[in-house]
Amino acid sequence: MSATTTLARDLAKAVGADGVVAPESHLLTDMTLLPGSADAVVLPDTAEAVARAVAWCYAHDVPITPRGGGTGVAGGAVASGGVVVGLGRLARVRSFDPLLWRMSVEAGVTTAGVQRTARESGLFFAPDPGAAELSQIGGNIATNAAGPHAFKYGATGTWVSGLEAVLAPGELVTVGGPIRKDVAGYDLKSLLVGSEGTLGIVTAAWLKLLPAPEVTLPVIAFHADTSSGCDAILRVLGHGVRAAAIEYLDDEALASGAASYAPGVPAGAGFMVIAEADGAPDEAERVRGELIEALSVGAIGVHTPRDREGLEALWRWRAGLAFAVRARRGSALSEDIVVPLDRLAEAVDETVAIGRRHDLIALSFGHAGDGNLHSTFLISPESDDELRRAQRASEELFALALSLGGSVSGEHGLGLVKRGQLGRQWGPRAVELHAAIKASFDPKNLLNPGKKLAF
Amino acid sequence: MSATTTLARDLAKAVGADGVVAPESHLLTDMTLLPGSADAVVLPDTAEAVARAVAWCYAHDVPITPRGGGTGVAGGAVASGGVVVGLGRLARVRSFDPLLWRMSVEAGVTTAGVQRTARESGLFFAPDPGAAELSQIGGNIATNAAGPHAFKYGATGTWVSGLEAVLAPGELVTVGGPIRKDVAGYDLKSLLVGSEGTLGIVTAAWLKLLPAPEVTLPVIAFHADTSSGCDAILRVLGHGVRAAAIEYLDDEALASGAASYAPGVPAGAGFMVIAEADGAPDEAERVRGELIEALSVGAIGVHTPRDREGLEALWRWRAGLAFAVRARRGSALSEDIVVPLDRLAEAVDETVAIGRRHDLIALSFGHAGDGNLHSTFLISPESDDELRRAQRASEELFALALSLGGSVSGEHGLGLVKRGQLGRQWGPRAVELHAAIKASFDPKNLLNPGKKLAF
Repeated sequence: MSATTTLARDLAKAVGADGVVAPESHLLTDMTLLPGSADAVVLPDTAEAVARAVAWCYAHDVPITPRGGGTGVAGGAVASGGVVVGLGRLARVRSFDPLLWRMSVEAGVTTAGVQRTARESGLFFAPDPGAAELSQIGGNIATNAAGPHAFKYGATGTWVSGLEAVLAPGELVTVGGPIRKDVAGYDLKSLLVGSEGTLGIVTAAWLKLLPAPEVTLPVIAFHADTSSGCDAILRVLGHGVRAAAIEYLDDEALASGAASYAPGVPAGAGFMVIAEADGAPDEAERVRGELIEALSVGAIGVHTPRDREGLEALWRWRAGLAFAVRARRGSALSEDIVVPLDRLAEAVDETVAIGRRHDLIALSFGHAGDGNLHSTFLISPESDDELRRAQRASEELFALALSLGGSVSGEHGLGLVKRGQLGRQWGPRAVELHAAIKASFDPKNLLNPGKKLAF
Repeated sequence: MSATTTLARDLAKAVGADGVVAPESHLLTDMTLLPGSADAVVLPDTAEAVARAVAWCYAHDVPITPRGGGTGVAGGAVASGGVVVGLGRLARVRSFDPLLWRMSVEAGVTTAGVQRTARESGLFFAPDPGAAELSQIGGNIATNAAGPHAFKYGATGTWVSGLEAVLAPGELVTVGGPIRKDVAGYDLKSLLVGSEGTLGIVTAAWLKLLPAPEVTLPVIAFHADTSSGCDAILRVLGHGVRAAAIEYLDDEALASGAASYAPGVPAGAGFMVIAEADGAPDEAERVRGELIEALSVGAIGVHTPRDREGLEALWRWRAGLAFAVRARRGSALSEDIVVPLDRLAEAVDETVAIGRRHDLIALSFGHAGDGNLHSTFLISPESDDELRRAQRASEELFALALSLGGSVSGEHGLGLVKRGQLGRQWGPRAVELHAAIKASFDPKNLLNPGKKLAF
């Protein structure tokens, strides 16, 4: 009997025979499509089965790659040998108390599943990272996923009041719960949030919800250039207007999506701002009016759709933008740097300049209100040379983020692809503690090894 | 030259001669008035001086007790030998960008100072723990202080986007900054928030602010008993009304404060709910109307002051309540347990029952919306017997919180007085990690030793 067969047999004891599947290549990678390798993929259907699988792996020094929906873009779910633990079958809503604004869900419930369950009872789960139909709440928590509405509502972690997770060497641990405050211990919950499966595997979460805003009204403004557009964004904050989201597209990003933008992009537009007002009808109208006022100064055109179809079409279009951008040359390297808001214009312009220095088309779009840019270098999937140049350009981009007082990652995480960047962002003592925390949680370095490393 | 004189001389080199003061007893304790001991108190006036003081202590195996405004109620600032590092002279606002909703302040700026600076520019720092004129933002961060408005706005940590802290063995470390997102490293920022000075000493913070709500309208409802009052609170959430705060007082708490409640407490009232609507004028009116509707069902009386004086008088009265309660018998043991909101009524009633079993007057008040009770046992300061009974009652109270699925601490922290309670709340693996994190940050166990311990 081969080692692999033995492994599959032992894992079947942990998770059931139907819980062990062949390590097909699509189960070993994520949206990066970087090739992964593994000896087996397990799909436990209970948290206890996850604990048994981890316990077996930990006892046998087998690396473990946790896997949600596989929609990550930093290589966090790219397997490097051992066993992939997929959470997709942990898909139960354990409890839902709409009158108390809370829900307890297993890790494999999709983001859209959480959002829909909340909506059906008049509630609202605010985080809206892309690929909501595929991405899973466990993965959202493991990356502290965000999206456009994080500007007003915060990222995924803001809404997590408790976690159940399997920690090394294979124990099911709970911190927090259906409670709204807890300062008894160190904040292990926040430590697990965004840890990218390197400290433990989230199996379930208690989520806080909000009453759904009754009305959502977008305001879309087109400006001639980055400078005018960023001034408009700063004017929103300067006027004290609390938008639900403030997104932007620079000129090349806009060019990528213009053809599919149904209301039409006005001639001469080189920067697009998408802002949103939400709340009860009067409140949303008030904020909408203030957004129009702040964003119209110097604008070439302003769209203000009022109908639900217009709103949904807008966000569908925005969600498709990353694909439209990639389609330009077949592929792209896209990052998620963060800068202080007053440095946004500089970061947008510098992204283009960095691209130019490497003879690449560069563009950016993203979560303007949070200073979070998806700076993107377009490349052909056939050209190794373009890939190498884009990688060098990304290095410059990370240096730019740091020189502006920002962060190398606002929502994707380090994964595999940004390995080493944290060591430039943080000083030596913080990096040392980063490593010490990893060693405390995972002394054998078997949980998602090679990911979220400072060096 | 005595050891103490040598110590004072060496510390003077670190923080300047005027930065070393005598260890007077009031500088060695907090609101618990538990006696502390120390060989010296240093008051550095820069973060670098804090680092030098910590470096000296760390090199000489001298314990360090960080000290903010001394308004803690869990004994977190009760010194146990060595050196007290007071942060009060680190009182600069390093930067304030009102148009960008952000501020960078040193640890010794008072909570009220942060609030006022924000307000003067039309902004809003939401956390409002008690004793705002005395408590310091560094201490608020170290305890993740909350208060009534945490219900809508979250506790202090929600508003911290970056920290500067002195970590062992004496290094000034920065994580985050004036940025709104950052998932590059493990969440060291959240780990330091609420760590009660046991992992490091916060020297400065970047704070996020919000546009100030234009209007704030309280709704005060009196109910006959806990059951009717808690039903009313649940009705607020059930109706999807987003209050800024939902506070409560049980009958004994109400009796303690009734005489000083200017608008008068209606006869037969045994439970008081204080809710608040805020926002733009129309929005605040709308929420106010819904609060009145939800809280009036079964109420004995409803007060709805509209004037600023009425609002300010209300919160001043609420802030004084803890003192009015203590005044009943001269002293009190007051805790800060948290329960899921649907168990609030049970926790309120059980608090009284626990007191009765120990022949003590017990009462509770607090942050109803967050399920956060200040369960309080009244005692005479002259009676050791009453103190012992109150301590036993508190133990039962912590057990109650856990049996209801809650936490032993919602905002005070473990400090010295709740030492050992975390070991009952968390499982062994989580407790082990709590200790491992401490050991990583503070290998010599010199930072606020004896505090925030699971056992």
